[in-house]
Amino acid sequence: MEKKFVVGVDVGGQTSKLGIVNKDGNVVAQSVIRTDQTAVAEEFLSTLAKAIKDLLAGSKLSLEDINGVGIGAPNGNYYSGCIDDAPNVAWANGVKVPVAEILSGKLDGVKVTLTNDANAAALGEMQYGIAKGIKNFIMITLGTGVGSGIVIDGKLLYGADGFAGELGHTCVDNSPNARTCGCGLKGCLEAYCSAIGAAKTAKLWLIETTEPSSLRSLPLDQINSYEVYKAAKAGDALALKVFDYTGTILGTALADFVKFSAPEAIVLFGGLARSKEFLTEPITKAMNAHLLSIWKGKIKLLYSSLPESDAAILGASALAW
Amino acid sequence: MEKKFVVGVDVGGQTSKLGIVNKDGNVVAQSVIRTDQTAVAEEFLSTLAKAIKDLLAGSKLSLEDINGVGIGAPNGNYYSGCIDDAPNVAWANGVKVPVAEILSGKLDGVKVTLTNDANAAALGEMQYGIAKGIKNFIMITLGTGVGSGIVIDGKLLYGADGFAGELGHTCVDNSPNARTCGCGLKGCLEAYCSAIGAAKTAKLWLIETTEPSSLRSLPLDQINSYEVYKAAKAGDALALKVFDYTGTILGTALADFVKFSAPEAIVLFGGLARSKEFLTEPITKAMNAHLLSIWKGKIKLLYSSLPESDAAILGASALAW
Repeated sequence: MEKKFVVGVDVGGQTSKLGIVNKDGNVVAQSVIRTDQTAVAEEFLSTLAKAIKDLLAGSKLSLEDINGVGIGAPNGNYYSGCIDDAPNVAWANGVKVPVAEILSGKLDGVKVTLTNDANAAALGEMQYGIAKGIKNFIMITLGTGVGSGIVIDGKLLYGADGFAGELGHTCVDNSPNARTCGCGLKGCLEAYCSAIGAAKTAKLWLIETTEPSSLRSLPLDQINSYEVYKAAKAGDALALKVFDYTGTILGTALADFVKFSAPEAIVLFGGLARSKEFLTEPITKAMNAHLLSIWKGKIKLLYSSLPESDAAILGASALAW
Repeated sequence: MEKKFVVGVDVGGQTSKLGIVNKDGNVVAQSVIRTDQTAVAEEFLSTLAKAIKDLLAGSKLSLEDINGVGIGAPNGNYYSGCIDDAPNVAWANGVKVPVAEILSGKLDGVKVTLTNDANAAALGEMQYGIAKGIKNFIMITLGTGVGSGIVIDGKLLYGADGFAGELGHTCVDNSPNARTCGCGLKGCLEAYCSAIGAAKTAKLWLIETTEPSSLRSLPLDQINSYEVYKAAKAGDALALKVFDYTGTILGTALADFVKFSAPEAIVLFGGLARSKEFLTEPITKAMNAHLLSIWKGKIKLLYSSLPESDAAILGASALAW
């Protein structure tokens, strides 16, 4: 008999969110555990298994009622079921952790499926969100980093090894003074268009120019993309220019992604995407300026429509159907 | 009953090659017609239909013996069966020509399938060539332009509109003095790594430097990629540096393509790929330098293995099975 529920888990560096999701895409129960309290994978996965069982028990459900567990995690590999060296996850830093296998063992053999967080987001958007019915799209997650999930003919693109879709590490600046990315490469999209990249742009401009800005009243360490957003909202010219610069770089990069897979739409997701009122115009302008004529004005730019608190859980859960 | 033959047609700007291909991938008969003798599509397609019938008759075959006609053509669209504005093809310049429909009408309704030339090359390589058995690869054609055919899970990537895989027009130079490409955009891969782009590099360096080179004895108009190859072969330092520069740009771009679809291999094809003895090292070095650690040293760089004279026909014919 077909099961009526799945469990979705979103593994982040600090906390991991889990939820029980029904067929209609409603999160019927959810909880949060710490990811960063142990450097031992086995220990974290025991805590997670217990949290899943507790959550089910709280909803008067058991492992027998769920079709599977879907996990979205940094560097999660769909083919191998492993997290392959995730620097931001204490128990997966520099090592390969067979998450699906270990967790399934702790959950009476329930099927556990893993993918990276951006792929999970793309799946969630396709199953429950703005990308419903769109067969070809590229999901770009603008968070601490820049991730991507590429959907082709209604299916996630995994590639030969399960690692397809690392668009945050494509090169947007090949000049000698390009920024160095966390991955070690230079000029990566992520170094400019992640929440951290945008905040860095603001900080650099505050240092390099004398342009007045309300951001100057903040300690440098407190300037993040949300502060830049608030300043832009209040009309701060420097903050507005940060979004213009960030959107232009992103739009230019998106044009190259379109040349690869000719998607119907680009879907933006994540913290920085909440600044869409300042990003849409520069992104659209730069993307169309760098597209071949066959695509100019034709590629939709969409923003995630999932309720913020549920999005990551829903995305991960979509794996388990 | 299953038919034993297909016809492959490779439409080029000056000439079009056609051939009868059997199940084993042997070209059993072939001929060539001019593409550039008329600006009227209908007229060219009548000539082509007659050439197909004549070729079949010469092999004691008829339209009833063939499974279909496959055509590779610049800007050929698989979904629509049209050539959509191919500047280099006199009868398709600035217009959309329903090639598949018109030609099928002239061939008693035989099925005609169309795709662009780079996709056809990828299909040929997968069916008969070096990419046999490889499910995920990217074909890059280095000819007058730079084309690409992307294979994912054993299938050509067409995208939402049939135009996926325009990697020759991704940006490799975002600086203000980037070269302008024939497509109108700036800094395209094609402007540097096509046969014409490589020859242009040589010409510019001859003008901008005083470095001695055997190429200086040639009129500027006669310097093409083959002359640069011959000079490199004879040890000409400037010519060798042209290949180093071209290969480095290509390898850097390939690294970004890998980040998209995580292919098992890159397959190079076309006139410039014949200079592989000078290209392999800079391509491989630059590609690996710009790859994330998960891919470093793991992506195969292959060269087309199809007999030069048959490759285009075989590629196109692979569409018709």
